Amino acid sequence: MTATEKVEQYLKDNAARFEEELKEILRIPSVSTDAAHKPDMLRCAEKLVHFFQAAGMQEARVVETGGHPAVYAQSEQKPDRPTVLVYGHYDVQPEDPLDEWETPPFEPDIRDGKIFARGTSDDKGQFFVHIKAAEAYHKLGLEYPVNYKFIIEGEEEIGSPSLAPWIASHAELLKSDVLMVSDTTLYAPGVPAVLYGLRGLAYIEVEFKGGDTDMHSGMFGGAVPNPANELCKVIAQLKDDKGRITIPGFYDKVRPLTQGERDAWAKLPFDEEEFRKSVGAPQLCGEEGFTTTERRWARPTLDVNGFCSGFTGEGAKTVLPAKAMAKISCRLVPDQDHEEIAKMMEAEIRRLAPPTVEVKVSFHHGGPAWMNNPDHPINEAARKAYRRAWHAEPVLMREGGSIAIVSDFCNTLHIPAILMGVGLDTDNIHAPNEHLTLSDFHAGIAASAFLAEELAELGSWEK
Amino acid sequence: MTATEKVEQYLKDNAARFEEELKEILRIPSVSTDAAHKPDMLRCAEKLVHFFQAAGMQEARVVETGGHPAVYAQSEQKPDRPTVLVYGHYDVQPEDPLDEWETPPFEPDIRDGKIFARGTSDDKGQFFVHIKAAEAYHKLGLEYPVNYKFIIEGEEEIGSPSLAPWIASHAELLKSDVLMVSDTTLYAPGVPAVLYGLRGLAYIEVEFKGGDTDMHSGMFGGAVPNPANELCKVIAQLKDDKGRITIPGFYDKVRPLTQGERDAWAKLPFDEEEFRKSVGAPQLCGEEGFTTTERRWARPTLDVNGFCSGFTGEGAKTVLPAKAMAKISCRLVPDQDHEEIAKMMEAEIRRLAPPTVEVKVSFHHGGPAWMNNPDHPINEAARKAYRRAWHAEPVLMREGGSIAIVSDFCNTLHIPAILMGVGLDTDNIHAPNEHLTLSDFHAGIAASAFLAEELAELGSWEK
Repeated sequence: MTATEKVEQYLKDNAARFEEELKEILRIPSVSTDAAHKPDMLRCAEKLVHFFQAAGMQEARVVETGGHPAVYAQSEQKPDRPTVLVYGHYDVQPEDPLDEWETPPFEPDIRDGKIFARGTSDDKGQFFVHIKAAEAYHKLGLEYPVNYKFIIEGEEEIGSPSLAPWIASHAELLKSDVLMVSDTTLYAPGVPAVLYGLRGLAYIEVEFKGGDTDMHSGMFGGAVPNPANELCKVIAQLKDDKGRITIPGFYDKVRPLTQGERDAWAKLPFDEEEFRKSVGAPQLCGEEGFTTTERRWARPTLDVNGFCSGFTGEGAKTVLPAKAMAKISCRLVPDQDHEEIAKMMEAEIRRLAPPTVEVKVSFHHGGPAWMNNPDHPINEAARKAYRRAWHAEPVLMREGGSIAIVSDFCNTLHIPAILMGVGLDTDNIHAPNEHLTLSDFHAGIAASAFLAEELAELGSWEK
Repeated sequence: MTATEKVEQYLKDNAARFEEELKEILRIPSVSTDAAHKPDMLRCAEKLVHFFQAAGMQEARVVETGGHPAVYAQSEQKPDRPTVLVYGHYDVQPEDPLDEWETPPFEPDIRDGKIFARGTSDDKGQFFVHIKAAEAYHKLGLEYPVNYKFIIEGEEEIGSPSLAPWIASHAELLKSDVLMVSDTTLYAPGVPAVLYGLRGLAYIEVEFKGGDTDMHSGMFGGAVPNPANELCKVIAQLKDDKGRITIPGFYDKVRPLTQGERDAWAKLPFDEEEFRKSVGAPQLCGEEGFTTTERRWARPTLDVNGFCSGFTGEGAKTVLPAKAMAKISCRLVPDQDHEEIAKMMEAEIRRLAPPTVEVKVSFHHGGPAWMNNPDHPINEAARKAYRRAWHAEPVLMREGGSIAIVSDFCNTLHIPAILMGVGLDTDNIHAPNEHLTLSDFHAGIAASAFLAEELAELGSWEK
């Protein structure tokens, strides 16, 4: 039996236990945006230290970063092999709307070959595959093919405010040859993805205030400004009838799609009607002149993420609202500057707002888009490893989500990144009934092991 | 001492007790729109029966109407005097947003000469004045100047769905010469109003649905429709830049203001800047070509009363919402038909909605506008009574609110109505910190007694 065969056998023999261990961390409601969950954050971090120790890491500890704690772990660092820095996040999105979950968000439930719980796909079930791959080598008494460094943070869902400066001040500790992140998706069920691009994000919150208090719509309606009507009017003007964002200068720094990309993506297996059905919308939509794939991976967006004003309970209340609030975000592409775009959003909203309302704008987390060179040899290593794990030809692609921290790692440590997603875009991340397909979870563990071997074989690359 | 002087003395001697008794009914959270308050509704109705008995009513009972119970009471009906039907409502608006109340909404608190609690001005503190006026005659051993009939319902805030049919089937029981309603306001502090017009209401709820579930805005944004953006776009198109409602046919049946009304209203004491400051808005607004008073009393409106979509909690969530909901209502003027207008609103919203979203529209309660003949002799009786009670010259006016049931009573029983408001438009009805000025509460009790005497003196009028 070769080392690889031994590892594969070990993964098979321990598959059931891996699922039970994943459930242990899924049960902890590590919601980073809600201060009430602070104790859960530490509890989750400490649980991870335990798993790193079980995987044979020489060092594993909870790291204070200023905000929610991170977890750092590393194997013994040997000079004759490449060093892989694995990044993940143990914090999760809020669980609301709670009443739309079929089983409670923090009581993991397996059905139809999937594990359901908040954080299964984003990101607990994904970074966990690398810990289990390392564990296999350790328990079998084999040497790790690579030096491991792990940094698992607790603030990704709130924009990693503490980790970015921590990376800068710990560049020596984090020194490595490649960043490895599992926080994305396969291209399609059974089809792994070699991912070379992510979108960025600019996110603002807007409040319009009319009167000082909610008022009676009969006694004041028609003469006192309605901030909900006015905010609707302003939001309506942020996009034109062709799906183009109208904010002045918004597209100035957008890097156009290459013809090569457009041609390659047009050839990808993609059934638009099937996609439409899977999301359940009556029709798809988007910016004129681009395909659905291009709109999702390589074009910027503007979406209302939340809107609240007046009486929203059951029944009717004839209230003239005092305030209206909207959360609005833009997904960005290279080379848009997320801070510049956030300021443009604010300026345009202030310009469009009528003098009858007071305008407040605040900024939530954001980050730049990220792109790898698709011709880098690590992509070929990834392709080989995935092909072995999933028995399918991987797709070279970009994705629409944002992981701002990837840019921070790559720019600070001057290393490329491998984004090995084991989720699916139908996993309902950030939504009720989030889940992860268990066969992909197990394939991900194998892929992590194979990739470590491929990287070891690659030996060195231009850094 | 004349009978009137005896009554005035009694009201003075018992003023403190009247306030304590008002508190007793204010403590009961009789929120009609919320099914959880069903037991409170009955408790409040039973408490009113007790007060009617104490005021000497021959009959006082809780009446099943199909929905929340009403209370009916009447004095001995003598043939030599006019019969006054007093209408009021003991149900109240929901108390939210709770955190904006300075003292709890159902724990009445007196400060600065005002009593604060949900329902003080709308409508418990208003209909209560007529019960206390009747009590004065009874306790003093005097004959009531008029025959009293009282109907106090528990469903006004949800559109009186049960009372309208109940009026029709109890027309004989309710037979009377004039309807008396206290559910409106003085013209200004210290200035009573003889009110001859109210606006009507059409109220709809709209839901736009994009995808089947809230989705990740990075993975789906730009290609999957956003119902919040789309609903904003549609709402933005319902009014033009001149504050005119754009719904086709909306103004067709609007009865124009007479030049006499416009001239009279222009002479009313009204400081626009002071009004603006009192509501706290940066600027007033409204339909071009009309004054603030005209906009509030005699022109139709369209207001978003509530809007909810996506993530509205603290922090940022990068969600593409599945649904967006808006509550939208129009205040109506004679001779607009509220059911016709609600259907027009639905049709226009469906016409404007893009094919990318599913549209659901539901109808909340509504009602027609109401107008009295301002030259009717009962208005002169009211003017005299108010002048005595408030020591000020009353104003002949219309108001912007809606009391659909007034039209139902007047049309079914073929009687005119006296709308004797003792509130102020700064009472924060339907809003946090609702209150009623205690001096107006007591003046209202006196005015009710004086008005009974004036009506008795009037003897008869063209019915």
